[in-house]
Amino acid sequence: MMLNKDRFFPADPVTRSIAQRLFKEVTHLPLLCVHGHTDPAWFSGNQNFTDPAQLLIVPDHYILRMLVSQGVDHAALGVKPIDGTPAEGDGRKIWRLFVENYHLFRSTPVRHWMDYTLEQQFGFDAPLPSLDADDSFDRISGALASDAFKPRALFDKFNIGVLATTDSCLDDLAHHRIISHSDWGGHVVPTYRPDSVTNPDLAGFQDAIARLGALTGEDTTTWKGLLRAHKKRRRDFIAHGATATDHGHPSATTSDLSKAECQALYADILRGKAGKRKKEAFRGQMLTEMARMSIDDGLVMQVHVGSMRNHSRFVFEKYGPDQGFDIPARTDFVSALKPLLDIMGHDPRLTIILFTLDETTYGRELAPLAGAYPCLRLGPAWWFFDSPDGMLRYRGITTEIAGYYNTVGFNDDTRAFPSIPARHDLARRIDCSFLANQVAEHRIGEDEAAEVAVDLAYGLALKSYKYGHLS
Amino acid sequence: MMLNKDRFFPADPVTRSIAQRLFKEVTHLPLLCVHGHTDPAWFSGNQNFTDPAQLLIVPDHYILRMLVSQGVDHAALGVKPIDGTPAEGDGRKIWRLFVENYHLFRSTPVRHWMDYTLEQQFGFDAPLPSLDADDSFDRISGALASDAFKPRALFDKFNIGVLATTDSCLDDLAHHRIISHSDWGGHVVPTYRPDSVTNPDLAGFQDAIARLGALTGEDTTTWKGLLRAHKKRRRDFIAHGATATDHGHPSATTSDLSKAECQALYADILRGKAGKRKKEAFRGQMLTEMARMSIDDGLVMQVHVGSMRNHSRFVFEKYGPDQGFDIPARTDFVSALKPLLDIMGHDPRLTIILFTLDETTYGRELAPLAGAYPCLRLGPAWWFFDSPDGMLRYRGITTEIAGYYNTVGFNDDTRAFPSIPARHDLARRIDCSFLANQVAEHRIGEDEAAEVAVDLAYGLALKSYKYGHLS
Amino acid sequence: MMLNKDRFFPADPVTRSIAQRLFKEVTHLPLLCVHGHTDPAWFSGNQNFTDPAQLLIVPDHYILRMLVSQGVDHAALGVKPIDGTPAEGDGRKIWRLFVENYHLFRSTPVRHWMDYTLEQQFGFDAPLPSLDADDSFDRISGALASDAFKPRALFDKFNIGVLATTDSCLDDLAHHRIISHSDWGGHVVPTYRPDSVTNPDLAGFQDAIARLGALTGEDTTTWKGLLRAHKKRRRDFIAHGATATDHGHPSATTSDLSKAECQALYADILRGKAGKRKKEAFRGQMLTEMARMSIDDGLVMQVHVGSMRNHSRFVFEKYGPDQGFDIPARTDFVSALKPLLDIMGHDPRLTIILFTLDETTYGRELAPLAGAYPCLRLGPAWWFFDSPDGMLRYRGITTEIAGYYNTVGFNDDTRAFPSIPARHDLARRIDCSFLANQVAEHRIGEDEAAEVAVDLAYGLALKSYKYGHLS
Repeated sequence: MMLNKDRFFPADPVTRSIAQRLFKEVTHLPLLCVHGHTDPAWFSGNQNFTDPAQLLIVPDHYILRMLVSQGVDHAALGVKPIDGTPAEGDGRKIWRLFVENYHLFRSTPVRHWMDYTLEQQFGFDAPLPSLDADDSFDRISGALASDAFKPRALFDKFNIGVLATTDSCLDDLAHHRIISHSDWGGHVVPTYRPDSVTNPDLAGFQDAIARLGALTGEDTTTWKGLLRAHKKRRRDFIAHGATATDHGHPSATTSDLSKAECQALYADILRGKAGKRKKEAFRGQMLTEMARMSIDDGLVMQVHVGSMRNHSRFVFEKYGPDQGFDIPARTDFVSALKPLLDIMGHDPRLTIILFTLDETTYGRELAPLAGAYPCLRLGPAWWFFDSPDGMLRYRGITTEIAGYYNTVGFNDDTRAFPSIPARHDLARRIDCSFLANQVAEHRIGEDEAAEVAVDLAYGLALKSYKYGHLS
Repeated sequence: MMLNKDRFFPADPVTRSIAQRLFKEVTHLPLLCVHGHTDPAWFSGNQNFTDPAQLLIVPDHYILRMLVSQGVDHAALGVKPIDGTPAEGDGRKIWRLFVENYHLFRSTPVRHWMDYTLEQQFGFDAPLPSLDADDSFDRISGALASDAFKPRALFDKFNIGVLATTDSCLDDLAHHRIISHSDWGGHVVPTYRPDSVTNPDLAGFQDAIARLGALTGEDTTTWKGLLRAHKKRRRDFIAHGATATDHGHPSATTSDLSKAECQALYADILRGKAGKRKKEAFRGQMLTEMARMSIDDGLVMQVHVGSMRNHSRFVFEKYGPDQGFDIPARTDFVSALKPLLDIMGHDPRLTIILFTLDETTYGRELAPLAGAYPCLRLGPAWWFFDSPDGMLRYRGITTEIAGYYNTVGFNDDTRAFPSIPARHDLARRIDCSFLANQVAEHRIGEDEAAEVAVDLAYGLALKSYKYGHLS
Repeated sequence: MMLNKDRFFPADPVTRSIAQRLFKEVTHLPLLCVHGHTDPAWFSGNQNFTDPAQLLIVPDHYILRMLVSQGVDHAALGVKPIDGTPAEGDGRKIWRLFVENYHLFRSTPVRHWMDYTLEQQFGFDAPLPSLDADDSFDRISGALASDAFKPRALFDKFNIGVLATTDSCLDDLAHHRIISHSDWGGHVVPTYRPDSVTNPDLAGFQDAIARLGALTGEDTTTWKGLLRAHKKRRRDFIAHGATATDHGHPSATTSDLSKAECQALYADILRGKAGKRKKEAFRGQMLTEMARMSIDDGLVMQVHVGSMRNHSRFVFEKYGPDQGFDIPARTDFVSALKPLLDIMGHDPRLTIILFTLDETTYGRELAPLAGAYPCLRLGPAWWFFDSPDGMLRYRGITTEIAGYYNTVGFNDDTRAFPSIPARHDLARRIDCSFLANQVAEHRIGEDEAAEVAVDLAYGLALKSYKYGHLS
């Protein structure tokens, strides 16, 4: 065994034994994968994965960043330069590079997720660097080729209760349609992500607006048509099981413009004549409009803000966007959300789940807001902070202000399908550790802690993401 | 017993036993209630409290916020809409609602304070949710009707050394006069809070200025008269035992304007012609003037800054101000205090105690400032952060920079009189836990830790708030 | 014994025993003093130190600040007012004042460093306040007069592998020359600190520019000449063993101006006609130019930013600059560094080590940046945060994002030579404690932790500061 059964539990023996008991209550609960970036095509086609590197290394930004930070070039990790220069195509070589550098990941979540995945999914009984890199590559490749490693089989084996993908609002949902019409019982649902038509700074914005029109038969060159198109597409997503939207904005800005102002603003945006301020107002207004639609159609809003995309000019110019060089930005929620909250902050039909990359907002902004407004909930520790100490800081700061019941459980948020159980395992262990400390210091009773543990692992996600019909 | 005798102490057995020994040194020390919001009328009239909900639930913003955040309406908690629509008036129903939702408060300070109050004040031996809500309501009501629960009897039973109320500078201090002329020996002193005449953004500012004039016989329409009126009123407060002022400002801004600038600014303010910038300058100048007066009359300044009041438009319009929707604001002290510090930062007669709702300022601003300027002291963890982990973060970040002796002990800051012992109990336990960790890791000796524990629980408040004559 | 052998180790017995084992691996490693403020004259002249107060108290800003914050005047601590008013000149009296106030330093790093220094260097076996102040003064004075306490003897006894001083770029390096030409084997190397000619806000900037010209024979009134002068002086420093530069700037601003813009900007600067914005741009451009030169000559850049100098007007006017009243400023790295990173952020020849006084940047900015850009490394917890909990927060926040291998080990950063071993001892203990917790919670294996412990204590400093030739 490579994994210790008490990993991530507090060292104090009494506290550890409490954590063990709490963990026993949650370990067999289904995984609710309410937010992530897996590919629905995996489950519609149900084809075997092939290359360990393409599955476990290349799409993982955590790994890419760390190796690049120590001087490895993107191309050596299989990322193709946009000028057509070749990149490493041999998964085995990429795997070797990763294994050689495994020490860089010590005490980082990549290490925890990978060790778990290798032991639990692939039967490894020793840590990577002690094995021959080629042997481990072959062993994973071999397993991936078997029936037991087909996507649907893994999904079932992982005890996934529901898995939400994140899908462009322009997606035709063909894969979701195939999955739901198949005889397989897995719940795979889409999430409505409209960034390509709400953020004028993204490349291809104009085309996306046109495609939204084409898809819906609405005239999306008008403000009215744009809103109608969104409503239609949201209905399509709901018909395929969606319960949520997702919004990745640079800031949490919301706007409250009059209809005439919206029309004028949108016209400027479409003509490409809008500056920074107007683009920000447009994104803000679109968040407000999405909230209005959510009140009508019930979709829960997820708002992920505060990422400065593509910070490295070198990487952006050589490899294109989204290559591991997003950096957190300081984020304001208190003023930014006020326009939206002033309109509908107390509407019981609305739920907005907030995510931040700026930990200073936990105690100063997010917990006080979510601990007061009925429509607001706190998403779990996100991205750079989705790690043992990151999650402990999140609970340590938010709980005393907003309690447990203004949070929504865990998001695995992964692109690496086989790592899903690892991520839930880690999150559940950390929550049980946090609760065990509460019990050991007599802050709450163990019976209550057990109830909370189940809610954090399962109940709160089920309720917040409106999956009640699936349980 | 509902309360464990080791609550809030570290789980490690050796560390816990140190905490127990330290706590023994402080547990019987009188409570110095140097800052809070109890009503002096309670102690002048000494009438029994009647409704458990009105005493323990309705005025408590922590409880209001949490219940509202989970969809309970203010009116259901007894808060009256300003349009005259009825609110729940039956304390029993409000109590039931609270008991039903008691799980929301798990791991929050409300839970700790309430459990302590119910056991220690009202003799409960099981947690609330396990009891019948009506029984618990009746039991509290019954107790409240007895002589032992009259305000003065509770004050004596609580071993309160001194209790400072927070009083408008327009208050006639009638209740304080009655108390000091009575044959009861309790020390209840006022605190000079001039916000109504220093903050032009508050409703009724002009009237308050006029009343200040009427009360003092000064022409408060002139800058000179305004200052003279403050000096007189401060003398009145001092005559009734006040040792401190309190200032609740949106920011820590201070100003250093010439006399002519002050006169012109004040004229603009009075004419209602001042914009945002001028109002801020006026508040800042008033802080500076208050500091000047403190050098003369010895009143210690408390500065509570960084609360964005009445964030929810819905709540403000329906229920009025101060209904649990204040949200912390990011706060600057380093530049904001410089004008005042440049004038009198090294004057040995001045003491300014700083409070923040922005924890990022602990290490970056407040501890470095208080660890250098002789006039500055750090107030304890405030409001959202007056909680076990909040207090531990406060000590963990400030102590290594500013030490223990630039802090001022604990403030209970409560409106709920029966919870005062609970709050001091919690704070003392947390400070003993912090110190016990220091001892267990051999950072300081246990003899020194015992001395510090007494200082944090008693000595520093006594000295900082100038209560030496009472001990 | 005054010092417990387990000081700073976690209280939990299992974790503590892991920390003990890890510490055993690092305790005898040479001290790499890669950044600090000791005086090379000590090692060239090798004269005995004389006054304990001048050696241990007066130059230590940590001590100065704390005593001043509690009402002690600078002059009483031997700081001379600039108007010629006398200051305390008797080291014995200054020492007494320090001893009387020793309780103020409880749980602060000064206390830890001083206890260690007194026991390990001077043989004290009881804490200061329990001794007669005059006796302890005499004992230290006596020791200082002996041969064993000559600077070179202490250097050797301390097991210092290399000691870098921080030297003005205008320094003639005479002391370094003497040291390297001596028969003594100690490695004392200079560090290139050009602030006096990169920061137009510093007094004497124009003179410094002229001296730089005189020293190098370049016309430093031209942009081209200025750059050539820097290159020459850097070569001088390298010839004396320098491997690094150091830059103390108010912000992390970098600029990317054209050559023509640089020339025009520099002309404005020299004419004294540049305002705030231009001065900031000049500092930013000079950082960029220094990075360009580092790519050519290999000097590692250290960037210390975010200190607001001389906050107290009273102290500045009475005692001059640098008298313990520097206060941290909130700091941005993400936007500020982008111009430089856009040019050479991925150049493998460049290393920039970043230091902050704003802990909020650890997780939001520094770890994400250093965990992605190959040229960036994180300097250790700095100044106000170079303390047990400060260092634990640093590791706790940065490790999960950037790992251990994007950090550079410890800097003692001291002016007090005898305290160097104390500072390394403390830092090594804290890193071992952090690692022990990781092992106890099964986050990494103990064998790996031992490897990391050695890297944090020695290997990373050796590599990052390019001292490989010395080992």
